[in-house]
Amino acid sequence: MQRVFTSIFMISAVFFSASCAAQEASEPLLVEKQSFTFNNYTTLGGEVIPEVTVGWESYGELNTAKDNVILITHFFSGNSHAAGKYSADDVLPGYWDSIIGPGKAIDTNKFFVISSDTLVNAFPNDPNVITTGPASLNPETGKPYGLDFPVVTIRDFVNVQYELLKSLDINKLHAVVGASMGSLQALEWSVAYPDMVERMVSVIGAGAMDAWTIMALEHWARPIKHDPNFNGGDYYEGEAPLTGITSTLAMITQQAMHPVIMNMRAPQPEVMPETALESVLKSTPVLDYLFANSANRAPLADGNHLLYLVRANQLFVAGHEGDLASGLAKVKAKTLFLPATNDLLLQPYLAKQAVTILEKQGKNPQYAEIEGVWGHLDGLFSIPTKAEDLRTFLESD
Amino acid sequence: MQRVFTSIFMISAVFFSASCAAQEASEPLLVEKQSFTFNNYTTLGGEVIPEVTVGWESYGELNTAKDNVILITHFFSGNSHAAGKYSADDVLPGYWDSIIGPGKAIDTNKFFVISSDTLVNAFPNDPNVITTGPASLNPETGKPYGLDFPVVTIRDFVNVQYELLKSLDINKLHAVVGASMGSLQALEWSVAYPDMVERMVSVIGAGAMDAWTIMALEHWARPIKHDPNFNGGDYYEGEAPLTGITSTLAMITQQAMHPVIMNMRAPQPEVMPETALESVLKSTPVLDYLFANSANRAPLADGNHLLYLVRANQLFVAGHEGDLASGLAKVKAKTLFLPATNDLLLQPYLAKQAVTILEKQGKNPQYAEIEGVWGHLDGLFSIPTKAEDLRTFLESD
Repeated sequence: MQRVFTSIFMISAVFFSASCAAQEASEPLLVEKQSFTFNNYTTLGGEVIPEVTVGWESYGELNTAKDNVILITHFFSGNSHAAGKYSADDVLPGYWDSIIGPGKAIDTNKFFVISSDTLVNAFPNDPNVITTGPASLNPETGKPYGLDFPVVTIRDFVNVQYELLKSLDINKLHAVVGASMGSLQALEWSVAYPDMVERMVSVIGAGAMDAWTIMALEHWARPIKHDPNFNGGDYYEGEAPLTGITSTLAMITQQAMHPVIMNMRAPQPEVMPETALESVLKSTPVLDYLFANSANRAPLADGNHLLYLVRANQLFVAGHEGDLASGLAKVKAKTLFLPATNDLLLQPYLAKQAVTILEKQGKNPQYAEIEGVWGHLDGLFSIPTKAEDLRTFLESD
Repeated sequence: MQRVFTSIFMISAVFFSASCAAQEASEPLLVEKQSFTFNNYTTLGGEVIPEVTVGWESYGELNTAKDNVILITHFFSGNSHAAGKYSADDVLPGYWDSIIGPGKAIDTNKFFVISSDTLVNAFPNDPNVITTGPASLNPETGKPYGLDFPVVTIRDFVNVQYELLKSLDINKLHAVVGASMGSLQALEWSVAYPDMVERMVSVIGAGAMDAWTIMALEHWARPIKHDPNFNGGDYYEGEAPLTGITSTLAMITQQAMHPVIMNMRAPQPEVMPETALESVLKSTPVLDYLFANSANRAPLADGNHLLYLVRANQLFVAGHEGDLASGLAKVKAKTLFLPATNDLLLQPYLAKQAVTILEKQGKNPQYAEIEGVWGHLDGLFSIPTKAEDLRTFLESD
């Protein structure tokens, strides 16, 4: 599979080289989504999924010793497209292209960077996502699993990534790096496979979900459950619960953004807008701005997948047994925590809680806050301000 | 009406005097809900409501000059019960009993404190709430208005209070004081009736809604609109949209509380809870804690009223014309703004925005932040930490 990626990249290099001498630095990598399948996965909850397929991408070259691997784990509404472009025509590159690439903080001239789609990815209908979840066909019935799909946890996401790496004969991770839900996976990696993980970077993350955040996540689930089309999760032969999904996506978008940036980007609220005065059911330009975008993306998402993601996040405590301290006691990796000061979703106290425990355990965790106006999304958009910290951490012994 | 209140209080004073010498200071005032009705109110949007009835309460005595009046305006999920108890058996007194009463910051030995229910109050089925809104009978049809009720604004809430005061022959407000949505009314009072308002106190408030908050409010509306029982607002002859209302109330509760206090009060999240692993539709003790309370309160609320309240808040900009600066230009009152540092709902930047404009207009607004662990609810529960600032402000010339 690595050969396919390399040849695609080389074709593009030839294509661009005439027009751009410094192409490697200024043009994004061209990447290809790969697919990985394995059978009979037993979840942490003890259920068996007969066939698991997830997508993955990689950037850079795996060295002969196979010890230059950095795993990137994705956030709630994200997927494995962390860097590069699928085609030169793509409007945007992968979400962390600012820090992943040749000469960048996560330097693909040195590291083989690999990123995989999780189980129950939020957007299974996105052609660039390959995932297994309630919308997948149950091989035993030939129909979508629906709610027969077992509840899965962040540990299950990690275990599936472990199988992917094993298939590539990779037994060591130079680092695992993730933002938000990706940070939960990154930390879980260092608890579940402590001898395999040398460095762990948690961006806008947490060591365990607290009651407040578990409740906040539930609000994302409720609009889908309320949607008359939801039908107890059995909607694959009818209309999808798109109204509920739209509400959920809009809520995630608004809560992930700090007021400063949202107010800069959204239309200015109108004074005494006529339509809003006509009926409480009518919209306004501010609301249209938020909901129209979410409505556009809703058909790519799956209602059940969103509910499973909410549940996976709600159930998270690093190690998934005992308490957070007993989970973190297993960590052998060097750790770096990068919460965002203005994050309103996974606030810095959550990262600090894990850092305090690791310090008590004598593990010298590193901690720095990302400053920015984006709120939770500073983990994506303001991460370049921490590029040098990240580079230093990744290149340290 | 004042006589009724006084006699009730005196009966209770006699009842308690035998057992408690310091009764006035240690026992809450006993209060009675009053009712005020007037006809043919024309809304800011130009619609006529044939009959408006709202509840009100008062604490202390109106002096002969009728110039010792402090108006208290209530928050989104509140009502006019700001202080005292209806009966000595009441578990809790009114929401600001800590600062309203004999010798307290808002001293009922000096001031006649009056508080009214707003139009479209969230809980019209609460026997202690008297309001007019979509659930009220339309005298023209004999049936509930439903969505035929006109969209109303914060200015309309204020104009109804103006009619109430006029009926009591009150033409001057020593002060108007409100928290959250009550702060919007307080500020609007000082813009709409600048010659009548001498002092304005905005607690956990704003001068205008920004795009981010308008969106946050819309998330409160969506679960009700999604509820299959909602039926476009026409549910008064069928089942009420209680599932949606429960989601809305739970969202308000969680967002009004800071994680610190919520995590102290909610059950500790379980590790690998069996029921949560069985199905994404199953609950957990953390979620039960939040939603059971909201489900209990849901039958007292009305779905349409909640939508109208959301809309009234979304439409708020002090003055309701031009921009915030042109509204604030009308203010003649002395102003005091008390946002809460840890508020995640109406964050201090909203109060600061109004303060900055008033300063530019040379009006010397006062500003102090309430410190606490409650978040938005610090405006209710940590207000005693600002009792002396409040007393000084109210007793200043």
